[in-house]
Amino acid sequence: MSITGKQLINGEWVEGKGGQYQGVNPATGQSIEPALTYADGEQVKAAAAAAKAAAPVFAATSLKERGAFLERCSDEIMALGDDLLERLMAETGYPRARVEGERGRTCGQLKLFASTIQNGEYLDARIDLAMPERQPLPRPDIRFYKQPIGPVVVFGASNFPLAFSVAGGDTASALAAGCPVIVKGHNSHPGSGELVAQALAKAVKACGLPAGTFSFVTGPGRDVGAALVTAPEVKAVGFTGSMAGGMALFNLANQRPEPIPVFAEMGSVNPVVVLPQALKANAAAIAEGFVGSLTLGVGQFCVNPGLVLGIKGAELDAFMDSASAKLAQVPAGVMLNEGIASSYGKGAEHLAGQQGVVVAAKGQQQEGNGFCGQAQLLKVDAKDFIANAQLQEEVFGPSSVVVQCQDAAELLAAVACLKGQLSGTLQANADELRDYPELLTLLQEKVGRLVFNNFPTGVEVCHAMMHGGPFPAATDARFTSVGTKAIDRFVRPICFQNYPQALLPAALLDNNPWGISRWVNGERSNGVIGG
Amino acid sequence: MSITGKQLINGEWVEGKGGQYQGVNPATGQSIEPALTYADGEQVKAAAAAAKAAAPVFAATSLKERGAFLERCSDEIMALGDDLLERLMAETGYPRARVEGERGRTCGQLKLFASTIQNGEYLDARIDLAMPERQPLPRPDIRFYKQPIGPVVVFGASNFPLAFSVAGGDTASALAAGCPVIVKGHNSHPGSGELVAQALAKAVKACGLPAGTFSFVTGPGRDVGAALVTAPEVKAVGFTGSMAGGMALFNLANQRPEPIPVFAEMGSVNPVVVLPQALKANAAAIAEGFVGSLTLGVGQFCVNPGLVLGIKGAELDAFMDSASAKLAQVPAGVMLNEGIASSYGKGAEHLAGQQGVVVAAKGQQQEGNGFCGQAQLLKVDAKDFIANAQLQEEVFGPSSVVVQCQDAAELLAAVACLKGQLSGTLQANADELRDYPELLTLLQEKVGRLVFNNFPTGVEVCHAMMHGGPFPAATDARFTSVGTKAIDRFVRPICFQNYPQALLPAALLDNNPWGISRWVNGERSNGVIGG
Repeated sequence: MSITGKQLINGEWVEGKGGQYQGVNPATGQSIEPALTYADGEQVKAAAAAAKAAAPVFAATSLKERGAFLERCSDEIMALGDDLLERLMAETGYPRARVEGERGRTCGQLKLFASTIQNGEYLDARIDLAMPERQPLPRPDIRFYKQPIGPVVVFGASNFPLAFSVAGGDTASALAAGCPVIVKGHNSHPGSGELVAQALAKAVKACGLPAGTFSFVTGPGRDVGAALVTAPEVKAVGFTGSMAGGMALFNLANQRPEPIPVFAEMGSVNPVVVLPQALKANAAAIAEGFVGSLTLGVGQFCVNPGLVLGIKGAELDAFMDSASAKLAQVPAGVMLNEGIASSYGKGAEHLAGQQGVVVAAKGQQQEGNGFCGQAQLLKVDAKDFIANAQLQEEVFGPSSVVVQCQDAAELLAAVACLKGQLSGTLQANADELRDYPELLTLLQEKVGRLVFNNFPTGVEVCHAMMHGGPFPAATDARFTSVGTKAIDRFVRPICFQNYPQALLPAALLDNNPWGISRWVNGERSNGVIGG
Repeated sequence: MSITGKQLINGEWVEGKGGQYQGVNPATGQSIEPALTYADGEQVKAAAAAAKAAAPVFAATSLKERGAFLERCSDEIMALGDDLLERLMAETGYPRARVEGERGRTCGQLKLFASTIQNGEYLDARIDLAMPERQPLPRPDIRFYKQPIGPVVVFGASNFPLAFSVAGGDTASALAAGCPVIVKGHNSHPGSGELVAQALAKAVKACGLPAGTFSFVTGPGRDVGAALVTAPEVKAVGFTGSMAGGMALFNLANQRPEPIPVFAEMGSVNPVVVLPQALKANAAAIAEGFVGSLTLGVGQFCVNPGLVLGIKGAELDAFMDSASAKLAQVPAGVMLNEGIASSYGKGAEHLAGQQGVVVAAKGQQQEGNGFCGQAQLLKVDAKDFIANAQLQEEVFGPSSVVVQCQDAAELLAAVACLKGQLSGTLQANADELRDYPELLTLLQEKVGRLVFNNFPTGVEVCHAMMHGGPFPAATDARFTSVGTKAIDRFVRPICFQNYPQALLPAALLDNNPWGISRWVNGERSNGVIGG
């Protein structure tokens, strides 16, 4: 496959009419051939119209057909072979093991959705049978399930150029739900993005799906992105990225004549609470795990632990000493692009300059060219942390602030002032938690995922994952963007009253042709009705 | 029980500091004793603080405890006896059968939630067990369930002064989810609202729940309502009412530093499509059913059929003749309050004055005093309807517009231009639907509930009900406000990674103490883990 720099609109690859650009290798700062195009507003409209046209046809596919399509998407991505991996390494600075692992995760995600939807659980089918004799009024027959919400726009994330981009979790869950997808590719990995889009386009064609089932456009967020979110055909948006980007889309979507949901996964500092008994037993190991989690992938994870909260004393000092020593050995790593590296540098400096903040350790300085990030560990007293909300702002990269509290009460006060988070981690001896009765409850109010004696990086793609959380971690705390529950974002309920069998969707037929589990008169049943 | 005109804040009944007002009997226009008070901003803050304090304690109650509380709420409402019914009749103009029926629905709803939550289904519990040996990385133990979202503000609806007000569907579902509730009482039924609040306050006390579990405040929407929605402790809002009111709350909530979900059920004209073969067989019966549905309760239902779409011809003429004759006999009925009657009068006149609109029939004129509404049936050609979005605006009351289409293609074009709706109704012979292959698909995109050879009024409270729909029917099409699924609005997921048994919530313990159905490693199970 070769990279053309074109847009995929209604099944056709066309030159973008919105200008040209090129990919950049962040390890060298050099442009990568070939030149690529941006879509213009008319092309965005065409993609939205194609998605709308595809929506009812794609929605009407069976679970088996949709599963086969997702499998095919995975196969076509694998068939890209080294072309994909090499372009990806050039565009991201990620090592081969990382891009191979991420490809595995991406294809695994597609296959997991392919198999999971077969049980029909996400359809949430419910049937309340008629009671014609009921007094004072008969009860009609009412049948409920969840149908695809309509065309979905997905914004690729910079840091997971496969697993959260063109064919990543948002796309996989929207397609699994039966929604056409328009991806706005990320400028940070445009060539590899196009290759994956080519794979999906082949899968769409091979499975005989409507051309508008999947489209791929590129361009600046403020015009192409805005045009996508405001297109009337679009019914939901998935986004992973910065607070500024997510909120811009959220506000645009809410100001539409028809507001639509935006699932933006944005800022989180992922607090790690380290308690004294745990540190007493394991300060060095906890420090090592923490620094590993903080600096993994040059800190470019949304669940990067950007905040540590502990109680002053010998135990916390031991942790700080170990963590500082470990961090000092960490080389400056290549970040995803110039903008991210520059923002990280400014953000890290801004944090270090806040009232009461002291630099505890710095990682190694950059050598050579490329857009690199130097790790840093800061410390601050809890009173300064509590007084300054800026210390809670996400700095995307390998920087973390240790908040030193006088005692358990001040630790609680610091946790109480936290904003919403993707994750919250406890490093604790289970017994010592009795001394902090409110801590767990408080943390539970703030986060989407609680981690015990583990670290937040490494988000498992599974049935029980919740990757999301109270604002500003995400714009809608009621949904996850990772794991099989992510499909719930892209369906909406409809019910059918007194509908004839001939007109009902398969999921709600008396004879239960898909053999799915349904609630019938409030009881769970895999059976047929009246059989 | 006597009506005091006070506010219920943190378990105490206190004089409101925001001014005084009185209830009004809409059948006579006369004020009703005694004088009542409004809350002020400080009192709203106190109610929000009390709800926040109650939240973790109430969230920690077992399903049994919460079920017993909901049952007790129902019992205490029944114990109000005739005091409640008589005050309600005076405040609403509703006949005794209606208020008794609505009390039955309200108490039935509370009991349905009490029993339904016992199966734990809404908790959506999922457990992915650890795989310590997995390569290349071990899988941690991850457990997921849905926890209460936090304090919820409920705005009582005018037209269901029991079933969608103080202890109505929003309150019942939020309490069932484990969320404290603050009700903003509706000015149209303030005394009966207070009586129900007294019943709930007794239930809170009797069940030993925190005082802030339930509060009741009154006051104008633009200050008390706005103060409730912007209180930082509040995490979600339930509203049933006008488009203007719902959108004001939606916009306020989205502009908060922490945006929160607003579940506003707003405007819908509930289109009824009448097809020729069905009319040929049953024009008179369909017309009778339609006029009954249109004028039931003086048209004051959110699923009132305000729009009919048919194809010109002898069949539609027969329907119009029958419907006009029936409607002409309908007496002008007492509406809920002066504002509603006045808005209805103006709205009905506005509709009748639109380009191409002809009055087909009017109901009987008002006799005597009171705030009454006169039914009307209008007709218009599809081309005028398609050109004029104002003909789709909800006029709350017994007015409906019949859209006359030239042919099937024009009918589809008229349906295609519809906005989102709570319901869509088909009066059709199942065979003739083959001539309208796109009609069902188009309708399905627009509505929350499809009704076949039935009428939209009479919303069943059951497991399979979807009462909601695409904007502007509701602000969030993914949730229902009627039926047991309404609880989903007030929970959010959280997951626990590598958590010790001693710290997990009951729903996720290995020994499954509540015996609920859970997804364990992707398989449904009612069993224990490792047992």
